[in-house]
Amino acid sequence: MNKGRLEAFSDGVIAVIITIMVLELKVPHDADPKALAPLIPVFLSYVLSFVFTGIYWSNHHHLFHAVHHVNGATLWANLHLLFWLSLVPFVTGWMDENHFAAPTVGAYGLVLLGAACAYTILTRVLLATHAKDSTLAKALGKDFKGKISIAIYVAAIALAFVHPWIACALYVVVAAIWLCPDRRFEKLLAESKA
Amino acid sequence: MNKGRLEAFSDGVIAVIITIMVLELKVPHDADPKALAPLIPVFLSYVLSFVFTGIYWSNHHHLFHAVHHVNGATLWANLHLLFWLSLVPFVTGWMDENHFAAPTVGAYGLVLLGAACAYTILTRVLLATHAKDSTLAKALGKDFKGKISIAIYVAAIALAFVHPWIACALYVVVAAIWLCPDRRFEKLLAESKA
Amino acid sequence: MNKGRLEAFSDGVIAVIITIMVLELKVPHDADPKALAPLIPVFLSYVLSFVFTGIYWSNHHHLFHAVHHVNGATLWANLHLLFWLSLVPFVTGWMDENHFAAPTVGAYGLVLLGAACAYTILTRVLLATHAKDSTLAKALGKDFKGKISIAIYVAAIALAFVHPWIACALYVVVAAIWLCPDRRFEKLLAESKA
Amino acid sequence: MNKGRLEAFSDGVIAVIITIMVLELKVPHDADPKALAPLIPVFLSYVLSFVFTGIYWSNHHHLFHAVHHVNGATLWANLHLLFWLSLVPFVTGWMDENHFAAPTVGAYGLVLLGAACAYTILTRVLLATHAKDSTLAKALGKDFKGKISIAIYVAAIALAFVHPWIACALYVVVAAIWLCPDRRFEKLLAESKA
Repeated sequence: MNKGRLEAFSDGVIAVIITIMVLELKVPHDADPKALAPLIPVFLSYVLSFVFTGIYWSNHHHLFHAVHHVNGATLWANLHLLFWLSLVPFVTGWMDENHFAAPTVGAYGLVLLGAACAYTILTRVLLATHAKDSTLAKALGKDFKGKISIAIYVAAIALAFVHPWIACALYVVVAAIWLCPDRRFEKLLAESKA
Repeated sequence: MNKGRLEAFSDGVIAVIITIMVLELKVPHDADPKALAPLIPVFLSYVLSFVFTGIYWSNHHHLFHAVHHVNGATLWANLHLLFWLSLVPFVTGWMDENHFAAPTVGAYGLVLLGAACAYTILTRVLLATHAKDSTLAKALGKDFKGKISIAIYVAAIALAFVHPWIACALYVVVAAIWLCPDRRFEKLLAESKA
Repeated sequence: MNKGRLEAFSDGVIAVIITIMVLELKVPHDADPKALAPLIPVFLSYVLSFVFTGIYWSNHHHLFHAVHHVNGATLWANLHLLFWLSLVPFVTGWMDENHFAAPTVGAYGLVLLGAACAYTILTRVLLATHAKDSTLAKALGKDFKGKISIAIYVAAIALAFVHPWIACALYVVVAAIWLCPDRRFEKLLAESKA
Repeated sequence: MNKGRLEAFSDGVIAVIITIMVLELKVPHDADPKALAPLIPVFLSYVLSFVFTGIYWSNHHHLFHAVHHVNGATLWANLHLLFWLSLVPFVTGWMDENHFAAPTVGAYGLVLLGAACAYTILTRVLLATHAKDSTLAKALGKDFKGKISIAIYVAAIALAFVHPWIACALYVVVAAIWLCPDRRFEKLLAESKA
């Protein structure tokens, strides 16, 4: 089965998710630039969620670039990932509405954790139908970044109840880890063509 | 006529439908995790509608994978299906807003029934322009799952007025029937390539 | 220049337009089926706008199927069409909100007229870069349906102020004219392949 | 790495941005055509933002037409551009809500400036991976339009505090500069094929 439609549908869902989050930035009824001040944390959480959604899109792009075929199980593993991502606007909004209170920051981490687990499951489902020496298997390798992210999310959820900003700092750390582009795929794809 | 654009447009519409449903999950104005409690049924209905929309996308994907050509009638049979799917966020919202009252649960079933009938019509329209021994015709076969789903929806709509949870349980049964991936297409497509 | 992205972008915009219109169907706060009664005209206007948007997508699909190349002017002629279509949810909402009062029904016709003119301009721009004996030129022919639609829209806008239902009936007539699939393109494309 | 998905995702995001802006046109609760009068500035700002978003889509289309390959850095330079574009509905709404007060018109220019800088960065990132004699490098040339736009935006932001309409006039000037289709790409692509 062709992977083109799975990519197109995922692109569509992620495009809508990334764009409806901006609706949470409620237009102030005052022209004074000071009216933007209360929006600063909302804006920062928008930037964070935009970056996380962008990371998932970028990783999804790299991942499926190395995929050769998909089956019914892949479709559902992918829908499972999209489900968790679709909750990002909700938890971002809950966090904004309550000034980054501990439970809301924890919930934000929980959704990121869900998405990270869903992504890991997706890679496992894909590996099950690709040979051990396939470009995909080599590119995924030990998936160090994936494992460390899950560990940091778990820590962040717990530490949110010590202080929410610790959790927020950890989310930024995970984003930074992934923003360094995932060269594994690019390197191996270049090699496999050579 | 090429099927690519019909697939792309359907992907776009279904991507928007599946994502705007999450807007029904209204952000609580309270940071207490207890504030999420009243959202649990809303969340469960979101999961159910996400799964149903995912099932339609997945089946649409499998179906058009076996399709060779489309015509004007196919475009409209497909738009008819998308019309019913576009009503899913509305009936999900009505059900949520009224705590799964019998008429709202019945209306939810009615929209699912409409979508199921539209899907059946779409397959009939496609079969009319494909040979009897085409991959499509063989893959669709007797369409047992489609027929049983329609029967269950009709029963669920009636039983919603006995007790709404009976109808909800039946909706979950239909979802479960379809979540087992539709191997007919994958099997036959594999065979037709061999 | 390739037409693929113009098609994909148009698909995306039309998919969002067709789906956000359903948000105008406000969820009733009452589970009684009678609560749906005031929604009936809103629902009918949704169906009408869904059908019109579907007609434009379908015609756009047929049109670009016969197009070989696009240029900068085509992109803007196409964006101009999308602009008018993007106003459909607004005029549909205005009509709903005011119980099909004459000025709102007239405004609905005005937007449909704008879209029809934009579509005609788009075909002219495309014809300017295609040979007179191209499939596109032959398929468009005298564009009888396009011309009659524009005439009916003009009449409907004026007659809306006699009685809004006359205008509504005329909109249904135009939709019916287009729902008969546009066989010109299919016929000629079939011939050009033979 | 293939550029197809980057194009498809950008199309999706821009399609959603361009369409959700129309939601700012709030449906009047009065059928009198006079009820539309207060919407005229909102409508004009919608037209301006639609045109700007259309310009970015059109330029993005031309740009990537000449691109041969993308890498991780390209994905993020592109996401950065989409981020600024995603803020257009917010600043348009802020400007509308406050009757084009100076700070809101300045903020509008700031977002346009951000998008223009992001677009310039994107072209630099692309040039870094394309040869100096590539179609892309030739087509971009000295990027006169890009530089003049940035200069006008900076002037407009400052002049918004003299009088908002000066800034608005300058935004229209930039739009007019770009609406003249960017023939550099079309010309060079035609030559490179000849």
